[in-house]
Amino acid sequence: MTARQVVALAGGVGGAKLASGLQALLGQRLTVVVNTGDDLERHGLEVWPDHDTILYTLAGLDDRERGWGLRDETWRVMEQLTRLGEDTWFALGDRDLATHLLRTARLRRGDRPTDVARHLQRSLGIAARILPMSDLPVRTEVRTDEGWLEFQEYFVRRHQEPMVREVRFRDVETARITPEIEDAVGTSEAIVIAPSNPFVSVGPILAVPGMHDALSHARRGGTPVVAVSPIVGGRALKGPADRMLVSLGGEASALGVARLYAGIADGFVLDDIDTALAGDIAALGVATHSADTIMVDDVARTRLAAETLAFAADLAGRSTARP
Amino acid sequence: MTARQVVALAGGVGGAKLASGLQALLGQRLTVVVNTGDDLERHGLEVWPDHDTILYTLAGLDDRERGWGLRDETWRVMEQLTRLGEDTWFALGDRDLATHLLRTARLRRGDRPTDVARHLQRSLGIAARILPMSDLPVRTEVRTDEGWLEFQEYFVRRHQEPMVREVRFRDVETARITPEIEDAVGTSEAIVIAPSNPFVSVGPILAVPGMHDALSHARRGGTPVVAVSPIVGGRALKGPADRMLVSLGGEASALGVARLYAGIADGFVLDDIDTALAGDIAALGVATHSADTIMVDDVARTRLAAETLAFAADLAGRSTARP
Repeated sequence: MTARQVVALAGGVGGAKLASGLQALLGQRLTVVVNTGDDLERHGLEVWPDHDTILYTLAGLDDRERGWGLRDETWRVMEQLTRLGEDTWFALGDRDLATHLLRTARLRRGDRPTDVARHLQRSLGIAARILPMSDLPVRTEVRTDEGWLEFQEYFVRRHQEPMVREVRFRDVETARITPEIEDAVGTSEAIVIAPSNPFVSVGPILAVPGMHDALSHARRGGTPVVAVSPIVGGRALKGPADRMLVSLGGEASALGVARLYAGIADGFVLDDIDTALAGDIAALGVATHSADTIMVDDVARTRLAAETLAFAADLAGRSTARP
Repeated sequence: MTARQVVALAGGVGGAKLASGLQALLGQRLTVVVNTGDDLERHGLEVWPDHDTILYTLAGLDDRERGWGLRDETWRVMEQLTRLGEDTWFALGDRDLATHLLRTARLRRGDRPTDVARHLQRSLGIAARILPMSDLPVRTEVRTDEGWLEFQEYFVRRHQEPMVREVRFRDVETARITPEIEDAVGTSEAIVIAPSNPFVSVGPILAVPGMHDALSHARRGGTPVVAVSPIVGGRALKGPADRMLVSLGGEASALGVARLYAGIADGFVLDDIDTALAGDIAALGVATHSADTIMVDDVARTRLAAETLAFAADLAGRSTARP
């Protein structure tokens, strides 16, 4: 077994589930590049929703019923903030707040976001590495019929109700992937695009200057890129990806997602129930593999991770077998 | 009844008790000028221990058994911070943290400390006004046999164990009392120095540029200044004031305190059990009044406040009666 890294590009919940399956198989060999476009400041604290979802999931501390945040959470600070007249539309649990406090203090003293992230990960004892897509701020915004909204305004405060007409990543042009990401992608044996929203979770990662080049370079070197569909039977398992696919001019299906990744991904994992779409996806020049992509428990997570890695290995074999 | 203010100069617990008695009598006519020399940054948050002790006490939310912080407090955030490897020697309760979060966010966006303090006070619905002694930072430090320590390092982390050889107020020379304080002192009908530590609670307030002049000006205008002894029977009811009186070259008694306030106070309230010291205090040119100064409950707080105000009114009468 080689010590080469597997790199996963991931947003929040769907990405976290696959990442936990990958971590079960790979341990320290897993590097997750996480979307930071959802990050926000609330109550003066630096909150990184996608990073923390993956962090807590990989630490085994996530609340699976609620679907976000920590298990056994309490809300005393929020209750008191509400009493003090603060607008608490973005709920932060008490234990969760410790993460934000530690992070904010370290960022304020000038630490690199990547270093702060690694410190948190080590503090919770996780094996994998979660790397922010950039150390420089990028903020996802969506244009709706009400105008441009910051991502969490749309996602949490407005419950994803407004129709999304356009997505942009503020300040992305001045951002840059980190040396850690460049190194991990450059030396990886496989790159997995997790089943996260392609527009607002994976999209920001791919838009960071340096990421496209790093992926292209890795692919030219024989490293396969495999995407896992976040759309099953025409529906997003979580979040507004299906509605966005339509409102942004595509179709709400695994094929609609595959079209977005054509030219980036070598392989595409679609759900067993979508096997009928495999031909159309293959016609895009993307190899396909069907699997049970609904990760209902730890076993299902690990199984999908194993199938995805095997598919990637197969693609790498084919690639090196090419003349 | 006149609408003129009564101004109390106060530190933490002892000051908060008398302030709550004064508020019961005066309501909005009470202005408390609070020591900010104890303030500190912990976990990236701006913590104001003396302000908050008075805030919570005047809001009726203080924990009387523990002696500080909020009643019905929990410690979830601290527990998680400890788990994350942070050094949590300065305990911050969950509900208490809401205060620090709100405050820190507003200070970071550039609000004046006085305005932030007033906002917190209004949010908790208190009648009195608590004014930070300055909008500019002043930090109390004590010299011990271990060298100079920041105040809370000495007070909380080292449990007031090291002997204090010297006290200084860092940056006090660049600080200045606020216009609100200047106005309140200048138009007050009485000024009360609360039974707080004269060196590290009242001392910093008196050291802020502008305070001495404001007090002198008010006294010349006939406003009496009355101090209440924090030492009863040679002992501080709380904290290290008695040991400091000795280690800083005085004596641990009401007389020792009165000596520090001679030239500043017109009157001195000492405990009934210290009545024997009244003659020596009078010899300093300070009028005396004996009372039960141990504020065991709300009634005792209000009674001491009433006696102190009556004593001040009596002194004002004598002053205006003078030729």
